Parts: sequence; structure tokens; C-alpha cells
Amino acid sequence: MNFLEERIQRDGIVKEGNVLKVDSFLNHQMDIKLFKQMGEEWKRRFEGTYINKILTIEASGIGIACVASEYFDAPVVFAKKSQSINIDGDMYVAEVESFTHKCKNQVIVSKKFLGPDDHVLIIDDFLANGCALQGMISIIAQAGAVLEGIGIAIEKGFQSGGRTIRNLGYHLESLAIVDSMDAATGKINFRSQDESK
Amino acid sequence: MNFLEERIQRDGIVKEGNVLKVDSFLNHQMDIKLFKQMGEEWKRRFEGTYINKILTIEASGIGIACVASEYFDAPVVFAKKSQSINIDGDMYVAEVESFTHKCKNQVIVSKKFLGPDDHVLIIDDFLANGCALQGMISIIAQAGAVLEGIGIAIEKGFQSGGRTIRNLGYHLESLAIVDSMDAATGKINFRSQDESK
Repeated sequence: MNFLEERIQRDGIVKEGNVLKVDSFLNHQMDIKLFKQMGEEWKRRFEGTYINKILTIEASGIGIACVASEYFDAPVVFAKKSQSINIDGDMYVAEVESFTHKCKNQVIVSKKFLGPDDHVLIIDDFLANGCALQGMISIIAQAGAVLEGIGIAIEKGFQSGGRTIRNLGYHLESLAIVDSMDAATGKINFRSQDESK
Repeated sequence: MNFLEERIQRDGIVKEGNVLKVDSFLNHQMDIKLFKQMGEEWKRRFEGTYINKILTIEASGIGIACVASEYFDAPVVFAKKSQSINIDGDMYVAEVESFTHKCKNQVIVSKKFLGPDDHVLIIDDFLANGCALQGMISIIAQAGAVLEGIGIAIEKGFQSGGRTIRNLGYHLESLAIVDSMDAATGKINFRSQDESK
């Protein structure tokens, strides 16, 4: 097991309905030392890829992306989930369905901060059905930017999001892929990853 | 002018209605090197204060708090703006009015991540009327934790939030305090701060 899988097994809580709670270190209380390790690992996995911008989505992706960006020396842009009166009209927009909140959101990024010169790494905390990710990919396409890769902390391997993204040919690096979990025992099975790659 | 005031004067955009847009470096696209400087400066201003937890609020406070926390070696907890089905029932709750979005939100923090042993530094991007900040202070009081200080990036000095907080005796450190700004000329007047303190 790698460092993130170990942490998930130790501090993650499996609940009925395939819910994995990692709010003690990832998406409510945040362990910044862990985020640094994650950034270092993504840097290793995307070695040799030119990246000049990191894109994430509010809220729980932001902390991970900001800390990880220190390894890429690139600014972070976060996609916002609803229109604010403080944002200019000139924006990329995508529709995103939220599994967690059972609703549809518009996701927006200002056209000022994403364009054809950008080589983008997407970073987010979770990948399940992939709706948020598809919204970000749509925005990158609208901008004419290049999507160089996708770094995910925890992928729910038993949902279709990751498979779809890999089928589409994107370079997706999930640090931990949960293939199954059992709410009764708390046991989590991770997909084996080639540690040397 | 300090580093943040210089950046605001250079890249901030003053709009009618006392709106200051800093979305190119602070709250949409995020300059992580700037955030590190901010963290270093807060560390200097809160030197000698014991802090074991940082509290912020989604969304735009998260990135700043996470990067700044590296100087305090403390985990970050972010207050969430609405109830998620992925959060346990055991939470601190405060009502917060949003000036930007013209609505009321419930702000919640899990009781697991804030308690009487915590010495808390609040970090956020903006302080205007202070509603978000008051919500966080209420949550810290509910938790029986100690509020050791408040680090704000940009305070709108012509609104009442900062004055109220100082009157209440809290240790508030705003890195830039805007006393007035002019949408016609783009000129921003900062309150002078004792650089040596």
C-alpha cells in the first residue's frame, strides 16, 4: 500500500451506500503534510510533462491543488459552482451534476484565466461517476487549452468515471483506487498499482 | 506599501459599488507564491502565539489557509456553507449572511475537528461587514476552543467588520486595509501599517 492507501485504511470510515468518509484528513479537516506528499507523488507521475496551470473545483479540491501546485510552480484556478455577482460575464460554463448534493450546478471559469497557451493539470479529491471532471474537461476544451493530465486523490474504481476517462485516452493518475469496500467490516480493497512507474 | 498592497494596486480592479476584484491572483486564479509570502507574514505577526489549528471558510479562504498553514504546522479545517449528506449530524452551526451572494447560509463544522484543546487561527481572504468571520467566531465559542487570532488578506476598512472585531478585543491582522477606492481612477488608498510590528 502507498502512503495514501495506508492513511485511508487507517482513518477513513466506510458507511452504507458506498460512502467513504475521509473528512478527518482530506476534505473537511485537511492534513497539509499529506497534501505535500500527494503533490510530490503527482510530480513524479507527471515527470517530463509541461504544465503551466492547475485547474480544480471548489471546495474540497482547492486545498489539495494549492499545496500540490508548489511542486509544479504553476498558478491554480478553481472552477466555481454558481454565478457570483463579482464575476465578469465573460466565462466558460459547464453543467455538472453532483452525486453528493443531488443537484445540478453550473460550473464557471473566467475566460481571463484559461486559454490556448495553457497546459493544464486537473487536480481533485474524488473521482466517482466523473461529472465534475467532465465539466472541467469541457471548460478546458472551450478554452482551447491542452489537458496534460488529471491527478485524483481517491478514485472509486467501482463507479464508471475513471474507466470512461481512461477510455478517452486521458492521462489519469489516481493515488488510491478503491475497488470495493465493506461497511460491516470497514475493510477497503485497493486496486494494485505499479509503484515503480 | 507592503507586498500585498503593491500587488492589489497593480493587479486589482476597482469597480462601481466598492467592489475590488482580485480574481487574477487571490480568489479565482491563485498565486501560490504570494500565498506563501502571506503565510510567512502572518507567522511573523503571530510570533509567540501557540496555534494548533487553522479555521477558514469555503471556498476562497481554503487555498490561502492551506498554504499559510505550512508556516504554523497545523491542520486546516474549513467551515462548509451548506449541509452535505456526507457529514455526520454532530456539528456546530452558525448563520452567515453573504454580502456577495445576497443570501443566508448555514455554516457548519464537525464537532470531531474542533474542541476545548484547540488554539485557533482564523484565516480568510476578505473582511468587509464581517458576517462570515462572526459565524466562525461563534463556532469556535460553541466548541469551547480558544481564538488566538485572525489573519485576513484584504480588509475593507470603510466597512464595519474590522472595527467591530478590534473593539471586541480580538487580535486581528489584515495584511492590506483598503480605506477608500475610486472606480473612476482605479486609485486605492491603504491604511498605513507599522511595518516593524
